[in-house]
Amino acid sequence: MFSLHPQLINDTIQVGDLPLSRVLLMNNAELPWLILVPRRENVSEWYALEAIDQQQLHTESMGISRLMMSLFNGYKLNTGALGNIVPQFHLHHIVRYQHDSVWPHPVWGKIETLAYSEAEKYKIVSELQLALAQEIEGFTPY
Amino acid sequence: MFSLHPQLINDTIQVGDLPLSRVLLMNNAELPWLILVPRRENVSEWYALEAIDQQQLHTESMGISRLMMSLFNGYKLNTGALGNIVPQFHLHHIVRYQHDSVWPHPVWGKIETLAYSEAEKYKIVSELQLALAQEIEGFTPY
Repeated sequence: MFSLHPQLINDTIQVGDLPLSRVLLMNNAELPWLILVPRRENVSEWYALEAIDQQQLHTESMGISRLMMSLFNGYKLNTGALGNIVPQFHLHHIVRYQHDSVWPHPVWGKIETLAYSEAEKYKIVSELQLALAQEIEGFTPY
Repeated sequence: MFSLHPQLINDTIQVGDLPLSRVLLMNNAELPWLILVPRRENVSEWYALEAIDQQQLHTESMGISRLMMSLFNGYKLNTGALGNIVPQFHLHHIVRYQHDSVWPHPVWGKIETLAYSEAEKYKIVSELQLALAQEIEGFTPY
């Protein structure tokens, strides 16, 4: 049965589900940062998913990318699948700005974590759930 | 007309072309590191490609991923599209090992550059061209 890696549970806020992926918001108010985790067991690489799931993840990633850049008025999107520490496959989508605290470096291992306040968390999760429900087919909020 | 960003020309060795993407080998003997650059003009984001090209890049990325992990007996693949410094869209594929010099950190901005010798360069480019020609449809070597 699919379950999230404890580190992902610890670091993120669950936003909802796309047809394949759980949508997680990194609990870091420094930058808009979503993670897609396909709800499949024992997968560490994108290409190790079944072909139909590889394709669906691509579709979901494109949808999330466009939505984030529009919603957060981003300058550049950074995407990546690393998994050197957390082996459960997860795909990062991070909105970057020329004025962000670690620009132009990658965020991983560089950026400080500034947790969202309860009010900020409610606001951004609501915004994301609304945008996802309007723009990406099959999204179901938590 | 498509042309490579000077920084990509400077940092890489051209391996060949897939139907959409130029295949570049990062000139760093520390790790097997390939970059796909769609041969399209003025594209900075994956989702900004035309739909058919978005899909083709996904297909090429899956093929390159599987091939690299097999050819180089990798422990983990790291993929990413950053583009904070080089705006021309390019997609990294990096084979990682638990014994590599920056494990488990991301390589960007961390790993030292150790250029291939002429002999190493000839060997790895030949291996890659052979594997790509055998396993990925539409590959044409330089």
